Amino acid sequence: MKILKFGGTSVGTADSIRKVVDILLSYKKKKQEFSVVFSAMSGITNQLIEVSKKAAESNEDYHAILKSIENKHINAVKSLIDIKVQSKVVAHIKMLINELEDLLHGVFLLKELSPRTTDLVVSFGERMSTYIVSEFMKQSGLDTEFCDARKLIVTDHSFGAAIIDFKATDKNIKEHFKATKKIQAITGFISSTVKGETTTLGRGGSDYTASVLGAALGAEEIEIWTDVDGVMTADPKKVKGAFTLPAISYVEAMEMSHFGAKVIYPPTLQPAFNKKIPIWIKNTFNPEFEGTYISAKTKANDFLIKGISSIREIALISLQGSGMMGVPGVSARLFGSLAKKKINVILITQASSEYSICFAVEPKEAEYAAELINEEFANEIQAKKIDNAIVEYDLSIVAIIGENMRNTPGIAGKFFASLGKNGVNIRAIAQGSSELNLSVVIGEHDLSKALNSLHESFFLSDIR
Amino acid sequence: MKILKFGGTSVGTADSIRKVVDILLSYKKKKQEFSVVFSAMSGITNQLIEVSKKAAESNEDYHAILKSIENKHINAVKSLIDIKVQSKVVAHIKMLINELEDLLHGVFLLKELSPRTTDLVVSFGERMSTYIVSEFMKQSGLDTEFCDARKLIVTDHSFGAAIIDFKATDKNIKEHFKATKKIQAITGFISSTVKGETTTLGRGGSDYTASVLGAALGAEEIEIWTDVDGVMTADPKKVKGAFTLPAISYVEAMEMSHFGAKVIYPPTLQPAFNKKIPIWIKNTFNPEFEGTYISAKTKANDFLIKGISSIREIALISLQGSGMMGVPGVSARLFGSLAKKKINVILITQASSEYSICFAVEPKEAEYAAELINEEFANEIQAKKIDNAIVEYDLSIVAIIGENMRNTPGIAGKFFASLGKNGVNIRAIAQGSSELNLSVVIGEHDLSKALNSLHESFFLSDIR
Amino acid sequence: MKILKFGGTSVGTADSIRKVVDILLSYKKKKQEFSVVFSAMSGITNQLIEVSKKAAESNEDYHAILKSIENKHINAVKSLIDIKVQSKVVAHIKMLINELEDLLHGVFLLKELSPRTTDLVVSFGERMSTYIVSEFMKQSGLDTEFCDARKLIVTDHSFGAAIIDFKATDKNIKEHFKATKKIQAITGFISSTVKGETTTLGRGGSDYTASVLGAALGAEEIEIWTDVDGVMTADPKKVKGAFTLPAISYVEAMEMSHFGAKVIYPPTLQPAFNKKIPIWIKNTFNPEFEGTYISAKTKANDFLIKGISSIREIALISLQGSGMMGVPGVSARLFGSLAKKKINVILITQASSEYSICFAVEPKEAEYAAELINEEFANEIQAKKIDNAIVEYDLSIVAIIGENMRNTPGIAGKFFASLGKNGVNIRAIAQGSSELNLSVVIGEHDLSKALNSLHESFFLSDIR
Amino acid sequence: MKILKFGGTSVGTADSIRKVVDILLSYKKKKQEFSVVFSAMSGITNQLIEVSKKAAESNEDYHAILKSIENKHINAVKSLIDIKVQSKVVAHIKMLINELEDLLHGVFLLKELSPRTTDLVVSFGERMSTYIVSEFMKQSGLDTEFCDARKLIVTDHSFGAAIIDFKATDKNIKEHFKATKKIQAITGFISSTVKGETTTLGRGGSDYTASVLGAALGAEEIEIWTDVDGVMTADPKKVKGAFTLPAISYVEAMEMSHFGAKVIYPPTLQPAFNKKIPIWIKNTFNPEFEGTYISAKTKANDFLIKGISSIREIALISLQGSGMMGVPGVSARLFGSLAKKKINVILITQASSEYSICFAVEPKEAEYAAELINEEFANEIQAKKIDNAIVEYDLSIVAIIGENMRNTPGIAGKFFASLGKNGVNIRAIAQGSSELNLSVVIGEHDLSKALNSLHESFFLSDIR
Repeated sequence: MKILKFGGTSVGTADSIRKVVDILLSYKKKKQEFSVVFSAMSGITNQLIEVSKKAAESNEDYHAILKSIENKHINAVKSLIDIKVQSKVVAHIKMLINELEDLLHGVFLLKELSPRTTDLVVSFGERMSTYIVSEFMKQSGLDTEFCDARKLIVTDHSFGAAIIDFKATDKNIKEHFKATKKIQAITGFISSTVKGETTTLGRGGSDYTASVLGAALGAEEIEIWTDVDGVMTADPKKVKGAFTLPAISYVEAMEMSHFGAKVIYPPTLQPAFNKKIPIWIKNTFNPEFEGTYISAKTKANDFLIKGISSIREIALISLQGSGMMGVPGVSARLFGSLAKKKINVILITQASSEYSICFAVEPKEAEYAAELINEEFANEIQAKKIDNAIVEYDLSIVAIIGENMRNTPGIAGKFFASLGKNGVNIRAIAQGSSELNLSVVIGEHDLSKALNSLHESFFLSDIR
Repeated sequence: MKILKFGGTSVGTADSIRKVVDILLSYKKKKQEFSVVFSAMSGITNQLIEVSKKAAESNEDYHAILKSIENKHINAVKSLIDIKVQSKVVAHIKMLINELEDLLHGVFLLKELSPRTTDLVVSFGERMSTYIVSEFMKQSGLDTEFCDARKLIVTDHSFGAAIIDFKATDKNIKEHFKATKKIQAITGFISSTVKGETTTLGRGGSDYTASVLGAALGAEEIEIWTDVDGVMTADPKKVKGAFTLPAISYVEAMEMSHFGAKVIYPPTLQPAFNKKIPIWIKNTFNPEFEGTYISAKTKANDFLIKGISSIREIALISLQGSGMMGVPGVSARLFGSLAKKKINVILITQASSEYSICFAVEPKEAEYAAELINEEFANEIQAKKIDNAIVEYDLSIVAIIGENMRNTPGIAGKFFASLGKNGVNIRAIAQGSSELNLSVVIGEHDLSKALNSLHESFFLSDIR
Repeated sequence: MKILKFGGTSVGTADSIRKVVDILLSYKKKKQEFSVVFSAMSGITNQLIEVSKKAAESNEDYHAILKSIENKHINAVKSLIDIKVQSKVVAHIKMLINELEDLLHGVFLLKELSPRTTDLVVSFGERMSTYIVSEFMKQSGLDTEFCDARKLIVTDHSFGAAIIDFKATDKNIKEHFKATKKIQAITGFISSTVKGETTTLGRGGSDYTASVLGAALGAEEIEIWTDVDGVMTADPKKVKGAFTLPAISYVEAMEMSHFGAKVIYPPTLQPAFNKKIPIWIKNTFNPEFEGTYISAKTKANDFLIKGISSIREIALISLQGSGMMGVPGVSARLFGSLAKKKINVILITQASSEYSICFAVEPKEAEYAAELINEEFANEIQAKKIDNAIVEYDLSIVAIIGENMRNTPGIAGKFFASLGKNGVNIRAIAQGSSELNLSVVIGEHDLSKALNSLHESFFLSDIR
Repeated sequence: MKILKFGGTSVGTADSIRKVVDILLSYKKKKQEFSVVFSAMSGITNQLIEVSKKAAESNEDYHAILKSIENKHINAVKSLIDIKVQSKVVAHIKMLINELEDLLHGVFLLKELSPRTTDLVVSFGERMSTYIVSEFMKQSGLDTEFCDARKLIVTDHSFGAAIIDFKATDKNIKEHFKATKKIQAITGFISSTVKGETTTLGRGGSDYTASVLGAALGAEEIEIWTDVDGVMTADPKKVKGAFTLPAISYVEAMEMSHFGAKVIYPPTLQPAFNKKIPIWIKNTFNPEFEGTYISAKTKANDFLIKGISSIREIALISLQGSGMMGVPGVSARLFGSLAKKKINVILITQASSEYSICFAVEPKEAEYAAELINEEFANEIQAKKIDNAIVEYDLSIVAIIGENMRNTPGIAGKFFASLGKNGVNIRAIAQGSSELNLSVVIGEHDLSKALNSLHESFFLSDIR
């Protein structure tokens, strides 16, 4: 059994849905057993959020947006489904749209949009896309059954990013798949509480659905079908010459998640990782291309590193002073004051002198973070033992990633030589002992130059 | 007014005391106003601790040690002081020794050594050395007055490392110096509570005394006279060709404190830094040599960096897992669990993926630290979201230091190229945004090679 | 200027509204300046809560309830308002009912009722009642203006029991009253956030509105018009012969709040107390009766006490053991464990031996409270130093109240003699040093006997 | 096996020691098996504390006090012990005195007295008294062995009031008594850590020793021999006509501990209580008198109560305000702020209105307690929701005690009638649900009157 998951662009138009079903038919031909998870049609989730916000703001424009959502789905049905059964399918979609319209009317009347209602509104995306594709699969000769994942995946009440109850969920999944032989067309992203309230799984939710299903069923492989050829050496929009990696390890995938976010969001794959189920990243629009294979062990390849990642905008905050030297608890107080306000820390570095510590946060949280720290250390600052926190903006992070970096002297040298030669000034450096990731903070204006020179040095130059 | 401070080796023998007084006489000749702080004679503080511990263990050997302490001081008196007044000085030392003997007898009888008594015992070192030197200063034509710092420096009851009450202390110092024209020969390291109990100022205590005096009096300069030529580019025992730096900044001094610990302990100089009083590090045994000048601003020199520091033995602990990604509060919990047990963290690095964090601690605390962390994250570890903490031993830290590193591209390249060329494998890297300190963790077996190759690259090669 | 407040029964029917306006007209005749705060018509607030809950449960019955709410208000209009202007007033009420209907339809569609929406729904009660009365006031010759208190009273976002921002509120009230000469007919209970969201003031909210207005305006008096003759010596449903007190002090009013809850909820009167504004409790249906006068100082009267209060059902929890003797912190741990879970403690008593402590809580929280305590003292219980907490049910509290109790020996004797003579067994006693309140815990089966015998002794017997 | 314990006055002179041994001989005659615990000679413990404080203050007077301690013991030896063996016993006492002298000399030299040294110094009291009595017992024909309890009772390091390690202690006691048939003469009060450092058991320590021994050995009874006839109905110094109670229960003993402190300190008897071992309080100077029997169950007697207890000096602190009504957590914050500073609360009372709470503390802690509370509630006080804490001095507590109070209506009436008739004004009342103790706070000037009138009412009047 394989679990396949097709993302929003893969089900974004009637044409792409035909490609999806072609892929599935080829699997059937190979007598490959599988089930499939689907995202909402591309753009629909955002439109659903927009339409509900508009309604909450008493903006009557929401009717027009709802109409366009309806049209997109009806058009897909008309293009895909045989005229004979079309009316049934159209009727089902219209029924869902009516239900949604009622909800939005409620939001409009109350001028209020709760996280609970948001999750319910958003769920229509996957429910409609999966229903349409499942009908087209049946018509194409695949013995298919529509499966609403809200019957399988049980979560708590954290609407927007619900926490899965794995015990109940695994039981549900196993029983459901035991009871049927049909190919399951499963709604990604959505789930429900024990009381039957609709919840969603947060960022990367459809991948999460696939990963949870794969882990529960002990799938042989999980395939994430997307619109790119796999995980690339760098962001092709920023780096000319970036190319697809044939294979990476789970931890390399984790490390590359920042720029790779569009391809995968690694925490969602953790259930599969734990069961050591291999994952393929494949391209619906280029199905012959092999894609990227992600598994527990890294594979040697011709390069010293696996990829180059970057974050365009970060702010760097630093704290220094003699009052930090040899004083246990400074880091705990610093990060404690940030954690209380849920400020996420992207990179940390404290060099050996203990005289200063610095860390990166999102620019929009930087000022608040600095205030929190100045408050926490108000006494030390007044006694001139620690200086006020300093915030710097317009900075980026660039990182090189790869398990082979470990125990290979000279990589850091190559890295910094490449940056130095190109006049890139380095503001902070961090490399942990896993030696998977060497990160530097640089000026944002140097980002493009840094990325390209590093890609040139590590992937394209003759001498590797 | 200058404040001069002479360390233990500078007053370690009659000969060295003569050198000290020669220096002072040369200042007098130049009509330079000054006062002087003295440490205990070299080795005496340790012997005083040993003798009191022996007494507390009911070990009669303490008498012999006490005798040798007595002899060392009496011999210095006999060598330095004119036969005419010798008996008075000898009598005073003998009186102090008797008082000390009584104390030790008390410890012996009670089999108990409190921090309060330890501080009192230890105070005899500075009280004897300063008394002897002050008598010799008078005899040499310097209009000197012995000054017991316990009358000036007021602290709390934290015996062993007392916290100064600066308000009371500054007032005492100003009044004392206003009332006298004589050169003050001041006991370093010791202080007292408002109730008159003797306390000590902890690590680097005599420097602290000088710094506190200098700051209270607005001294033009503070001179720390020691037995080396100043702050060096690297530890000369480890690096051939290390040489003395003519000038560094306060913050550079802070950063270099790890290997420079024998020369200065920067937190003690904070009071002087706050008042922007320059500090000279000079060599009693090579007084013509100019030494190192420490001031608020760095001075440009011929080199890209100011020094190379190292810590021979550290352990590296790392924590990784998908459960750390995008979860605020992980650092706070990690460092919070360490802070509660007063475990000091030497270096921290968390690269941009947020997938792992690593930090260095002293090897003897590493196992305990890992246990604390595994306990703190027990739930995440059980849920396989975070792995058990990994500890690695036999590691060293090497760091390059200097304010000029800032805004000078290419330094990191030079640094890593030098290490890479010599096959030094790098386990972790940290450089904060102050760009004063670039630290790497390497195998201990590579330390010597790393230090020498870096010194060669940065200080000795033709092309700088 | 007086602030008058009329409760729900006072505006509960057309007839009662006529009585209200008669009272107001008599004030006008006396040239007394005043403004008036109104509650919702009696029963309406509860019906509004019921109707919104039904809607959230998708129960279509809500339409019928809404209709009955509409009818009640329309009928009042038809009965009170001249045929000429009736249509305008009916139209306004219908407009409000339509707005409410939309809201309820939204709740019905979303199957969700937020505290924010509840507050908004409930606000219609005061908005309709006050509007109707204000129209009738105008028609009766009072120069009246309807005033929606949401324009005056600014609160935080704690929907259901919002916290007033007194600075902004006082400013609004002063400006509003400065700008108009008309009698203000003000909606009680409701308020709004700075963003204009509707909030409510919690228990006793309309009294609170009156108290806040009175304090801001420095009113000469506040009159709380209700359906009883004032504060009585005891609950007349339980005690034959209970009679109205002509005058009590603020603190006596506080102490009597338990049984007097239907008349006043003292915390809402705090703003008036702070400004020493006297408060009258008066009866709309017996306006000639003088009522009860509440002011800063108690007035002497013919009786030793002012009233007898009771709580029908409480549970008593006791903790004892030698491990509590002379051990500071036992009470702190005990009450701390309860406070964490928001368990309210009604009565506490720890006699001088320190061997045991006991306290009363609501019966429904007793078992949980005992568990919390057993957990908190698990170690001491295991070491047999403290016994498990004991819970007793079916108990009541009876208390006598009055400032004159202070410094009058013999009251306790009279109290206990009366109970003893009637065979009432006393389970716990508490009297604080303010000597305003002497409370005993007795068996619930003895409550009626105790109340009547005490009332007989203190208020009705010849010898006082 | 019985465990007997003789207090300080019982071994205070040679004469009283003869009485003790007469009692023991009478037991031997009755073939009663027993072992005996002894306190230090009366006055000696205080003198040992005084002598060590004097030494720590460098006051040479300590020599004279030490001499008088020595003389008291030597004189007892000379009076009791046969001339033939006297020199051996004198020599042993002199040896102990020499050891003590060395210790005190150590304290004198260091000018410092640690809790550890204090415990060691104090231990000489029991060690000398028990040794002398044991020698006299042998000489009188009792087959006796001196037993230093430091070999049996193992504690932690809380010098001054050490916590017993019952597991190790019980094992030691059982093994020791199994290995010997001789009567053990055991030092009360003293114990030791596992490292062999001397500790003491705190208040009532010798009773504790007897109780621990009795519990470990399953003694049939414990006899506490003192200088009074047993537990009395009231303090005979304050109440004419107070008489000895023949029997009381453990819990009654607990409740009466305040005035009965000189007789017993109940927490020390907990180990015996837990094993339900009966305890006799007897008078060494009136051995025929039966004394008081303390056991698990109360015995009915002719009186409604068992005793009247009092505390001469307390301060009452009260806190009130509308901000306390219905607000969970006020008590927790109040007692939490006191507990942090280890302030002991003697009596608490919060009547049913929740409007005020009051509690009693020792007068010397009252002002500080009020400050702590005002700080804790600073916000509420500023907002005028709670008033500043009020402290009242010159107050006493009187309490009546007895298990028969439970379920006997009319006792409170009798109590308050007696006080009322005598014009005693009552400031606060507390009676817990155990109904063992009914306490009132009254003016100190009324204390004597209150005690005597209550004793008259409950114990001496004809009609009971």
